[in-house]
Amino acid sequence: MQLKNDLLLRAARGEKVERTPVWLMRQAGRILPEYRAVRSNLSGFKELVETPERAAEVTIQPVDILGVDAAIIFSDILVIPEAMGLTYQMQEGKGPYFPKTIKSIKDVEKLKIVEPEEDLHYVLEALRITKKELSGRVPLIGFAGAPWTIFSYMIEGGGSKTFSKARKMLYNEPELSKILLDKITASTIAYLKAQIRAGADIIQVFDSWAGILGPDQYKEFSLDYISKICDAINDVPVTVFAKGAYNARKEISTLNCEVIGLDWNMGIAESKDIIGDTKTLQGNLDPCALYGSFSMIEKVTNEMLREFGPHRHIANLGHGVYPDTDPEKVKCFIEAVKNYQG
Amino acid sequence: MQLKNDLLLRAARGEKVERTPVWLMRQAGRILPEYRAVRSNLSGFKELVETPERAAEVTIQPVDILGVDAAIIFSDILVIPEAMGLTYQMQEGKGPYFPKTIKSIKDVEKLKIVEPEEDLHYVLEALRITKKELSGRVPLIGFAGAPWTIFSYMIEGGGSKTFSKARKMLYNEPELSKILLDKITASTIAYLKAQIRAGADIIQVFDSWAGILGPDQYKEFSLDYISKICDAINDVPVTVFAKGAYNARKEISTLNCEVIGLDWNMGIAESKDIIGDTKTLQGNLDPCALYGSFSMIEKVTNEMLREFGPHRHIANLGHGVYPDTDPEKVKCFIEAVKNYQG
Repeated sequence: MQLKNDLLLRAARGEKVERTPVWLMRQAGRILPEYRAVRSNLSGFKELVETPERAAEVTIQPVDILGVDAAIIFSDILVIPEAMGLTYQMQEGKGPYFPKTIKSIKDVEKLKIVEPEEDLHYVLEALRITKKELSGRVPLIGFAGAPWTIFSYMIEGGGSKTFSKARKMLYNEPELSKILLDKITASTIAYLKAQIRAGADIIQVFDSWAGILGPDQYKEFSLDYISKICDAINDVPVTVFAKGAYNARKEISTLNCEVIGLDWNMGIAESKDIIGDTKTLQGNLDPCALYGSFSMIEKVTNEMLREFGPHRHIANLGHGVYPDTDPEKVKCFIEAVKNYQG
Repeated sequence: MQLKNDLLLRAARGEKVERTPVWLMRQAGRILPEYRAVRSNLSGFKELVETPERAAEVTIQPVDILGVDAAIIFSDILVIPEAMGLTYQMQEGKGPYFPKTIKSIKDVEKLKIVEPEEDLHYVLEALRITKKELSGRVPLIGFAGAPWTIFSYMIEGGGSKTFSKARKMLYNEPELSKILLDKITASTIAYLKAQIRAGADIIQVFDSWAGILGPDQYKEFSLDYISKICDAINDVPVTVFAKGAYNARKEISTLNCEVIGLDWNMGIAESKDIIGDTKTLQGNLDPCALYGSFSMIEKVTNEMLREFGPHRHIANLGHGVYPDTDPEKVKCFIEAVKNYQG
């Protein structure tokens, strides 16, 4: 089906666009009362992720309500460790928790390589429903966590300030670590390919915990695996968003991907210098800017757009939108992008 | 009193040294059974901070037990907000908690500028006792939090993943924010000068939450205040450790300070390029490296020392030592520095 609005895909491929496309990380979520209404009829976050009709519904909400230029499938990066054999619980206000974690090579051996059509059919079904219901209005973004980030959760068993257990594993068991990262990578590639078959027009890889590793370890234990994913996905553009990976922007620019996400701490001019002009950049307004006044939001959005320039840019925040953000402020950001006169 | 071992001070001033000095952030703390023994006789962390004899005792322990080249006074950066009028509680395993936080300009007006000899006499007394009991063996490090980090705690009321309340304040109430930052800065300068009078041979300013701000806000709301502190302290060398401030290394290099701390994510060669050779660098081994084998620790320590070179370097970790680190591994790190043959 021909897309009516393909700004995002053209910007991703480096083609000229009439205006900069815009969407927000976590746009399908708690900021919208309509999302909270759907969620309140279910037992919790996981039931929503696992119920394709409802996941599709909340995926499309921000397209209708906020007017974004893309939908991103409502799901979670932790469906991969779960499909591999480590189930997780989502604790309200506390984040994810894995009752079982990886401690030894035996634990790694027990994990399976994901067969997405079986193990993650609910995500694929949500993608198919969304794709149909969007009827070509905007592109649909699929996603997965980067292997290092998934690895961290599997070792740590949840969030952490230091991820010291996961990093300890890299020092003490580098071989086990690489076997596990390989298994996660193979699962992720199979999963992303299935998402594309189910309708994803572009893929984003989230390396949420990139910032916790020093430069050498980041290359060895994260980038090498993201690189394998980028090389395996050829049908649609790929976005790599490695939060906190200041040191690795040069190496990320050599990946076989089309778009690089910037967090709000990464200077725009500096990042353009480091990355060069063969990649599209995505980002990177501080999510806290949306707590400001309407006029402040317009001002900082315009400044951001000026600094990125009119091409090879996808407007977004530099991190997921904070759940207590006023949807009117989000609309203000989106309208500022749409109305910008370079 | 003449110091018997002044390696740290000479390295800080950029003088030639026979070997690289070494100490660890959080060396006086839970890694040592001797510390836990002292602590177990008291009601908790705060009683230890507020009991000069005991604080002095745990300050000196790592000099005796680990053989470090400096003592750092056992205290907490949060004594400043407490002395200004916001008391805190330290929750075991959960970090600090402030029952009262700053929400309005009225709250800011109620805060006092610290009079250290009155409000923080217990820290000064601990410094005097430590200085006497060290009898010149090694230099004594005093410290304080950077104004932005203290501000964050005062607004947020504790630790946070995003510090979104503190950052929201910067967007919505920039004037209130600056009045508060000025008050914290004035209190901190008075406090650090008193620490020097009480015996501190060098001062370290910890900007623990530097990494949460984008480049422009970091300059406006953090660096400008650190700069005032650096300009006010002239009698002893000053170290600025801004964790996560990748973007600000160039600006930090222009501060009126002698030493710049690097976290373990900051590449050494890259940081030397950015900062130049007019500052001494401190750091930056990954604290997780101390979970590795003895031979691994020697290897990575030697690599670090090679990359920093023999001058203008103070060996340390790139963050506080993790509390579950084996003291024998810490000793291995310290010995590796002492035995290094460039």
